[in-house]
Amino acid sequence: MTAEFSTEIPAELSSLRKSIDNIDAALVHLLAERFKTTQQVGRLKARSGMPPSDPVREAAQLKRLRTLATEADLDPAFAEKFLSFILAEVIQHHEELAASEG
Amino acid sequence: MTAEFSTEIPAELSSLRKSIDNIDAALVHLLAERFKTTQQVGRLKARSGMPPSDPVREAAQLKRLRTLATEADLDPAFAEKFLSFILAEVIQHHEELAASEG
Repeated sequence: MTAEFSTEIPAELSSLRKSIDNIDAALVHLLAERFKTTQQVGRLKARSGMPPSDPVREAAQLKRLRTLATEADLDPAFAEKFLSFILAEVIQHHEELAASEG
Repeated sequence: MTAEFSTEIPAELSSLRKSIDNIDAALVHLLAERFKTTQQVGRLKARSGMPPSDPVREAAQLKRLRTLATEADLDPAFAEKFLSFILAEVIQHHEELAASEG
């Protein structure tokens, strides 16, 4: 029964899932654009001899995202987890870039 | 020097950071909308006695997001990590909902 669940979904669930799928497609495309931008930042910083991380910038990002989340009815603690998740990936990209150029 | 870094950023870095900030605001608003939608799904499933998780649906979501990611030049492995990250939060919301109604 459980394994066949997706074959007999009610119309309301189907409609909600289509909205989730639309939102996810938008999220994936925005994330792709975000990483393109952070890769430009990484190259610029490497070229200019700037340190890869900037704690002042990260603190400002965190504060801003928590405020935006609260205004949008999103748990600010989740926004914080989300930013950490993204920044961890950015750092990994920077390390890969440094390794490939080292 | 590092602590004062944000006060003396070059114009190109500043411009890239403004793009990142715009993208992040869009991401936060989309995530807020996504969780509103999954909460509707959670209530619908609880009301209809449907199981909270649906492995067939999750497999289809994963496959679709990996394809979209590849088309958008985003690492499909990252898209998979991202979906897991979001689904973990959705499950936590569902558990909180069930606990508050239990």
